[in-house]
Amino acid sequence: MCLNLSNYALSFNFAYDECHFKIKKKMNTKDLLDQIAFIKEIDKVKYIQRKTKLFNSDRCENDAEHSWHLALMAIVLAEHSNEPIDVLKVVKMVLIHDIVEIDAGDVFIYDTVKNHSNTDEERLAANRIFGLLPKNQAEEFISIWEEFEAGETNEAKFARSMDRLEPLLQNTSNNGGTWKEFGVKYDKVYEKKSIIKEGSKSIWNYAEGLINESVEKGILEK
Amino acid sequence: MCLNLSNYALSFNFAYDECHFKIKKKMNTKDLLDQIAFIKEIDKVKYIQRKTKLFNSDRCENDAEHSWHLALMAIVLAEHSNEPIDVLKVVKMVLIHDIVEIDAGDVFIYDTVKNHSNTDEERLAANRIFGLLPKNQAEEFISIWEEFEAGETNEAKFARSMDRLEPLLQNTSNNGGTWKEFGVKYDKVYEKKSIIKEGSKSIWNYAEGLINESVEKGILEK
Repeated sequence: MCLNLSNYALSFNFAYDECHFKIKKKMNTKDLLDQIAFIKEIDKVKYIQRKTKLFNSDRCENDAEHSWHLALMAIVLAEHSNEPIDVLKVVKMVLIHDIVEIDAGDVFIYDTVKNHSNTDEERLAANRIFGLLPKNQAEEFISIWEEFEAGETNEAKFARSMDRLEPLLQNTSNNGGTWKEFGVKYDKVYEKKSIIKEGSKSIWNYAEGLINESVEKGILEK
Repeated sequence: MCLNLSNYALSFNFAYDECHFKIKKKMNTKDLLDQIAFIKEIDKVKYIQRKTKLFNSDRCENDAEHSWHLALMAIVLAEHSNEPIDVLKVVKMVLIHDIVEIDAGDVFIYDTVKNHSNTDEERLAANRIFGLLPKNQAEEFISIWEEFEAGETNEAKFARSMDRLEPLLQNTSNNGGTWKEFGVKYDKVYEKKSIIKEGSKSIWNYAEGLINESVEKGILEK
């Protein structure tokens, strides 16, 4: 009898475990399908052209290439952050920061008509695109995107300094690049780039030198 | 006298700190310049065309776009890994795994002449390109790249499963994509893709379903 009870208990546990596993597996499968839908949707980031061009090139960079470059820059330059940072969080920020442009489009940082800062259009895009993910991940991604946009935490400051540094390196490699193309002057460049110092004073020292050197070289007008 | 000694000590400490700071700053500046040289060099990854095409598209994907996509896939799909993984390490792996192709070029996974596995050419490339970085970082990047290539750790297995999954999603979105273009048959696809299960059994279940479905749809020949 004891043996039978024990068998019964074993069989019950097994049935329960199997059932639990199936439910979990079903949930995972549902999650996986949602994640795959997101992975397919974000391919559109590869079509979004930026104004800035590749280093030493006439080809415009797209948002996916830009985000890849920023992620590696964040990893390589993390030691220069003013404050300790969670590198994985910074990497997530820069990898996803432009995904909203699938719906909202790219706005040039020196655009004089359209505001580059956080718009309702971008919020709607964040909700739609990150909303394809399972609930917890959607909430995490929306929150990380908002943190980047707000620019207040150490991670957001460092991520934003990477986002400002890359086009500076591109324009100085491209004989003035978009500065010359769109007639952007020293003061505006200096103002937009000085945000770099909030993430890293040492990178800002380097960036400031590059900006001043660009004036001396005649590729940036004062 | 005591006060003088104290002042002397203070002044000595200050001088020491200032000197130490200057040395550190100088080292950081040297590191920063090396890191910038690396950041500029890897821009060339954006020119390396892969055989596979963007989702629902005729345009070939380049290595930078591919690496960006894999990094986000790794973050989003990490929960499906067979074993616990260090997500940041996986992200580093996929972000850098194709950088060696700046020198060595892209070899098609179904190439029948050239070997896709780790070549001397790729090792030379890793040493040259990662070697632009400060010593510690160069060593870390070379080691991570070698770990990915060896495919033995949990992180490498998961990173490699992402690398195999993306083109599968692309080919099934593109009506057979490179399978049709290069006459690749079911058995070869099944063999190359089955590496996914080493990283994630649940993703492999999904991938296996996609492969079989592709035969039923007539976009993959058995």
